[in-house]
Amino acid sequence: MSIVIRPLSPADEAEWRRLWTLYLELYETTVPDAVYAASFARNLSADHPDMNALVAERPDGSGLIGLVHYIFHRHNWREEDVVYLQDLYVDAQVRGGGVGRALIQAVYAAADAAGTPAVYWMTQEFNYKGRMLYDQVATKSPFIQYRR
Amino acid sequence: MSIVIRPLSPADEAEWRRLWTLYLELYETTVPDAVYAASFARNLSADHPDMNALVAERPDGSGLIGLVHYIFHRHNWREEDVVYLQDLYVDAQVRGGGVGRALIQAVYAAADAAGTPAVYWMTQEFNYKGRMLYDQVATKSPFIQYRR
Amino acid sequence: MSIVIRPLSPADEAEWRRLWTLYLELYETTVPDAVYAASFARNLSADHPDMNALVAERPDGSGLIGLVHYIFHRHNWREEDVVYLQDLYVDAQVRGGGVGRALIQAVYAAADAAGTPAVYWMTQEFNYKGRMLYDQVATKSPFIQYRR
Amino acid sequence: MSIVIRPLSPADEAEWRRLWTLYLELYETTVPDAVYAASFARNLSADHPDMNALVAERPDGSGLIGLVHYIFHRHNWREEDVVYLQDLYVDAQVRGGGVGRALIQAVYAAADAAGTPAVYWMTQEFNYKGRMLYDQVATKSPFIQYRR
Repeated sequence: MSIVIRPLSPADEAEWRRLWTLYLELYETTVPDAVYAASFARNLSADHPDMNALVAERPDGSGLIGLVHYIFHRHNWREEDVVYLQDLYVDAQVRGGGVGRALIQAVYAAADAAGTPAVYWMTQEFNYKGRMLYDQVATKSPFIQYRR
Repeated sequence: MSIVIRPLSPADEAEWRRLWTLYLELYETTVPDAVYAASFARNLSADHPDMNALVAERPDGSGLIGLVHYIFHRHNWREEDVVYLQDLYVDAQVRGGGVGRALIQAVYAAADAAGTPAVYWMTQEFNYKGRMLYDQVATKSPFIQYRR
Repeated sequence: MSIVIRPLSPADEAEWRRLWTLYLELYETTVPDAVYAASFARNLSADHPDMNALVAERPDGSGLIGLVHYIFHRHNWREEDVVYLQDLYVDAQVRGGGVGRALIQAVYAAADAAGTPAVYWMTQEFNYKGRMLYDQVATKSPFIQYRR
Repeated sequence: MSIVIRPLSPADEAEWRRLWTLYLELYETTVPDAVYAASFARNLSADHPDMNALVAERPDGSGLIGLVHYIFHRHNWREEDVVYLQDLYVDAQVRGGGVGRALIQAVYAAADAAGTPAVYWMTQEFNYKGRMLYDQVATKSPFIQYRR
């Protein structure tokens, strides 16, 4: 399958919203409209260089088939930022076709271009299908997450 | 034990460096001098509001007994930032005396004051002593970390 | 897919050996011939009622497509034995067709018939495909295994 | 602290029951009287060679300070049995004094004497104090337990 990975653009709003909603449903969660609006705007805006998004589509422009958000933030262990890859989603119909891998690798490339090569993400321990991919392109750390 | 928790101050550099070095040794790592310098400066500077540090000391001013860093960063699921609690350390001689708990609670209070109540941190699955405390003040999420 | 589950029989030796070898390869291990001989004999013999095996085949008798071993052993928390389900294997060509589930359910039925309904097994944390099935037919316990 | 490790004896019933009850309370469970009776009898009887128990006491005979059960059972990967170490308990007052370690090592010695050196046990992922010891005397496997 030929896949195009490119930055999110203003024309993607409906498709981005459709895919991200499907993603949030995997976590049995919803976000208010204000969060949709804020995140879409920030991921596009040059005023929010820490928030970025990439989307995947087929070369024929028939609609988005995947998305990923990535956030730059500070880290005390290094001078440069780190990259938090958040919200990786691939349309159910095209899973297993390399879209997720291509999105992760595009984040890696963006991280390298920014001089911030450290990329990490979080996933539920029981996200078996995701982890089959992640084990191929990254390393499981021994770190687990605690939340207030 | 009476404990004072306060923001990091310029006079703390030697003590902060001593404690943070002990912390990094737990992870069998080191950072270059440039990282010590950058992180100390950023945690103090108003030009870096995303990086902050608190320290613990006894009321008699006899030196630091604990430190914690916390970083504000964006998150797509909410309009406001989240707080990443990083580098919690308590001097070995005073462990079990409530210093770690007091530092975490001070980060919670700072997060609330900033209107960003979501606080999280990462710990190694086998950090048994830390987890004994964390289970009391937070919730273990099912999320594990992958790294490029 | 129509599946027949039945006890291991003496005529199954070659097919049982073929499948179990494939299973052991998943764990990157081998066992000596003496272990093949002992386990096959014990799983068949009435002199070893604690060791049992079931196999899966298609109704046309075209060869085995799955196997499972199960072992009865004592447990201090109950008067009756418990059942340790060991070595569940399904031929790669028929995975996803319900063979694994049918083998597990047949062990459950055998356990019930023996008056020893407690059945458990161990799996590697990263056995994603297996766990997709296990989450449907059993419960992940919080127990992890330590070995001398 | 000087510790004596010896097999369970008929005179230990009241002390064994006291310690085992404390152990079961850690798991927020109880067992009926029939299970106390059966397990005590079987752990003592030559008719049940698969069930065995060791106890720890001080040299002055002032009462039991620890217990461990261990069960021999079959395993398809080896001709000889394996040893399932179950129900390790140390009185709260003497924890950290080497009693748990001595009990585990005594099971190892019993396993070696029986020609069945493979010893394993299960523990809850969040049994932090236990795991501090287990990491010193054994290896955490990647295996987790599923239960019907």
